[in-house]
Amino acid sequence: MATLKDVAAECGLAVSTVSRILNNRGYISDEARQKVNDAMRRLNYYPNELARSLHRNNSGMIGLIVPHIMHPFFSKLISCIEESCCRRGYRLLLFNTQSVEDKEAEFMQICSRNRAAGIIMCTGGLSVKQFKDFGIPVITIERSIEYGTASVECDNETGGHLAGELLWKKGCRKVLHFGSIDSYRMPADQRYLGFAEVCAARGMECIRIPSNAEAFQKMEYREEIESALLRYPDADGIFANSDVIGAQILQVCRKLEISVPDRMKVISFDDTLPAINTTPRLTTVTQPISEMAELAVRLLEDVTQGRIVPVKNVLPVSLTEREST
Amino acid sequence: MATLKDVAAECGLAVSTVSRILNNRGYISDEARQKVNDAMRRLNYYPNELARSLHRNNSGMIGLIVPHIMHPFFSKLISCIEESCCRRGYRLLLFNTQSVEDKEAEFMQICSRNRAAGIIMCTGGLSVKQFKDFGIPVITIERSIEYGTASVECDNETGGHLAGELLWKKGCRKVLHFGSIDSYRMPADQRYLGFAEVCAARGMECIRIPSNAEAFQKMEYREEIESALLRYPDADGIFANSDVIGAQILQVCRKLEISVPDRMKVISFDDTLPAINTTPRLTTVTQPISEMAELAVRLLEDVTQGRIVPVKNVLPVSLTEREST
Repeated sequence: MATLKDVAAECGLAVSTVSRILNNRGYISDEARQKVNDAMRRLNYYPNELARSLHRNNSGMIGLIVPHIMHPFFSKLISCIEESCCRRGYRLLLFNTQSVEDKEAEFMQICSRNRAAGIIMCTGGLSVKQFKDFGIPVITIERSIEYGTASVECDNETGGHLAGELLWKKGCRKVLHFGSIDSYRMPADQRYLGFAEVCAARGMECIRIPSNAEAFQKMEYREEIESALLRYPDADGIFANSDVIGAQILQVCRKLEISVPDRMKVISFDDTLPAINTTPRLTTVTQPISEMAELAVRLLEDVTQGRIVPVKNVLPVSLTEREST
Repeated sequence: MATLKDVAAECGLAVSTVSRILNNRGYISDEARQKVNDAMRRLNYYPNELARSLHRNNSGMIGLIVPHIMHPFFSKLISCIEESCCRRGYRLLLFNTQSVEDKEAEFMQICSRNRAAGIIMCTGGLSVKQFKDFGIPVITIERSIEYGTASVECDNETGGHLAGELLWKKGCRKVLHFGSIDSYRMPADQRYLGFAEVCAARGMECIRIPSNAEAFQKMEYREEIESALLRYPDADGIFANSDVIGAQILQVCRKLEISVPDRMKVISFDDTLPAINTTPRLTTVTQPISEMAELAVRLLEDVTQGRIVPVKNVLPVSLTEREST
């Protein structure tokens, strides 16, 4: 592989000048920059970023730890975070815990060993406690970790309110809620709480059908949806914690010949691909995923630069009415 | 941050012994290993992976360059590649070109500067040519780049055959094909060719509705589907190049009151989340995405270890019949 010296010789400049150009220090003429770039291309020379990272004790990488990559909420979040990282000159290291708690600690260690600039955590196990002091800023998204640097979430409670009020307005009187995961607490739990509040205030009967981490991992809710719909044949509205669940509710309704939206109103949460590509299309509570991603990356950058940031950051949600209500 | 010296002092061992333990060299008693691990935890010491990477001139990272993160095919592929990387001790650096060709070269440079162990390319622009000699193995997935190290693809042509034969068997006589991207050549083009071959042999009329990179990026095909269905009202079967397109065909058929599968048979490609979550569920050609991911990572590893690998690797597809045919 070519060295800096080779590049300097190739373009007839001093090594120190070439180094100055590569590091963008001092005055550099366009002509000199062009010369160096051309020589680098001819010689296939690539500066060693590892040496710079070691020198700065910072690799400029952001570790992103998610519990799921294929789930439409996370694939959209990953896409938006990658875009924000790219725009701000960070590289994205992606880790998937698949909801296995031990993996969090392992991945955080890897980030630390590689001197990541920061970590964005979308998982929230307890194994993280021991990393409280390990000196890398940790921003959480939609997870409650008290010892993180700052958290980003959407206004889940208001999302629940919006869903409840819409179902009430559409004439529902007995409603089901799907998709809270019982095994650990997270901000999304507020969706049910907000929803139940409206149901109580309006006098709608509200039945909570809890779910679990396994169903989330497999994105497979059909059986529990079917058994709930058979158990509560007089239900006339459903609020689901994700578009994936919403899409499967539509399938089960069709199977049981329950017409949507005539006999059953369905509203989901997230506003990701499945909400748009189902038949009928899903009414959903829209999370500002792109803004949440951008904020998380910006918070990391701010912390890295020594700024004080809000520890809790709640972004607004909105209602997107389509064909299922 | 604690240093190696601090760890040695904390557990009463020589620095050289601690270093030996961290690098897994020579005989190490379980007791000594435990001592060092405990001390590391107490002091929040994390070995500097950057220094090791610099020494080896290899960061143990794999750069994955995709044109889309949210598209269900790519989110599944990314998930499977992350899993393979994790199992083999690599870290995954994720880059999204969003089909912007210039970004490929930029991302390949970043991988090279960070001494990545290899690159997995799922984009296939021309800008890559200049990187032919840059000394990092490049494995392509579902893209034709002649100067890559090796390619992995599924048997697209057979996929097209299977789709054609099924539509024929189901009684179709005039069929549409959706979703080839006209602006560049890639292995997925073989899906149409295989399909058209069967149509010609069976005497089915076959009309190709080309698409473009913009529709792919936006995952928005509804308008072109609707105008095609209005233009060819006597079409009785459709083969689509992805499940995303398949899901939107179902929506447009519902809008135009074309009953699926009674009046229109629909078959798509990929077998990802949308195929399972639509109503009706989609018949689709199943790509072995998990095996393709595993093979790509294994090929990279083999090349890194100096082994000779097949330059072209074609994995088999199969037909998954559901409710849309």
